[in-house]
Amino acid sequence: MARKPPRRTAERIAQTTLALFNRFGEPNVSTNQICADLSISPGNLYYHYPSKDDLVSALFDRYRGDMALLLPASADVRDVEDAWFFFHSLLEVIWQYRFLYRDLNHLLSRNRHLELHFPGILRRKQEAVHTVLQRLLDAAGSANSALAANLVVLLTWWLSYEYVLNPRQALESENEQDALLRGAWHVLSMLLPYLEPGARAHLQALLSAYAAADA
Amino acid sequence: MARKPPRRTAERIAQTTLALFNRFGEPNVSTNQICADLSISPGNLYYHYPSKDDLVSALFDRYRGDMALLLPASADVRDVEDAWFFFHSLLEVIWQYRFLYRDLNHLLSRNRHLELHFPGILRRKQEAVHTVLQRLLDAAGSANSALAANLVVLLTWWLSYEYVLNPRQALESENEQDALLRGAWHVLSMLLPYLEPGARAHLQALLSAYAAADA
Repeated sequence: MARKPPRRTAERIAQTTLALFNRFGEPNVSTNQICADLSISPGNLYYHYPSKDDLVSALFDRYRGDMALLLPASADVRDVEDAWFFFHSLLEVIWQYRFLYRDLNHLLSRNRHLELHFPGILRRKQEAVHTVLQRLLDAAGSANSALAANLVVLLTWWLSYEYVLNPRQALESENEQDALLRGAWHVLSMLLPYLEPGARAHLQALLSAYAAADA
Repeated sequence: MARKPPRRTAERIAQTTLALFNRFGEPNVSTNQICADLSISPGNLYYHYPSKDDLVSALFDRYRGDMALLLPASADVRDVEDAWFFFHSLLEVIWQYRFLYRDLNHLLSRNRHLELHFPGILRRKQEAVHTVLQRLLDAAGSANSALAANLVVLLTWWLSYEYVLNPRQALESENEQDALLRGAWHVLSMLLPYLEPGARAHLQALLSAYAAADA
């Protein structure tokens, strides 16, 4: 890693910091640890990111960017399999930045940038989920913003739920596939009673196929 | 307050600390601030609680105790109004200790007592919700542990959702009634499609009466 060209340093710092935040939680990671992990000097780190908050903001902006790229795909959801893929992708982005939801108070009360932009992400996520519901359920007229809000809470805090149940292992990388699968499974299972018979049978078959992954 | 008998000091410390943690988040409250707020010396605080972690553990044990008192009431739920009351009471307890869910990583990674006992609370909450579902839905056979898990995520992180949407005001005391009402409303609304026609009409009427409170 030490031989990579200097212009990549900012990127390396961001990647390493994200991995450390996700593993240990942002409050438990110091800039000194980040420097030690990268074998760079504090001066080098501060040249790219003048404070730890700048690092948090930069990672948050990546999360925001990834969400902005993904959410419009909600308009292309045509059936329950598309919905499964969409929710799974959403959970994947949340997983990649899972430190953000674990210490909300700590992050939101200290970082004005997050305080300003976090609500918008949640709102756009909710609009996208509403779009999915409209595409899947509108025949039954059950697609509504309350259901969308509930699914957003479930999508957004599913990983926190797994974390509380198993603090030492739940958010380690080897658990990623199972956790994302369980999250998507649980979100999709909420749609069952609202679907028309054909779509319901389709979803039921999908859910049964993955039932072994259920918590 | 300064004239209260000394044996009440531990209780006063716990109450004040809980209020400060809920207001500012546990990571943002120092033992010095707690002492200043109570006008007591650090020595006095440490006599009752040798470390901030002991305070966190003591408050967590109260939360655990309140939950242990409340959860058996799930067996007495007979209709959707009972369920509304039960879920509202559950949200009330979570509200009283709302700091616990806002900085999970910070708290769980530092405090072995929480790490050991937090999973059990979530599991018992889930069993209680499952009991409510069995009492309300078993005719339709839809009461299952996946639905119970989803409702627990919704109940447990509803306040975090409100907090992200409105970091400065959502968790202030004046918002308590609205937040609890919205939380209960959203949880109950998830039961609609699973209820038998009579109970569904009953719940629909309740939900409509409180629709103005919906976010």
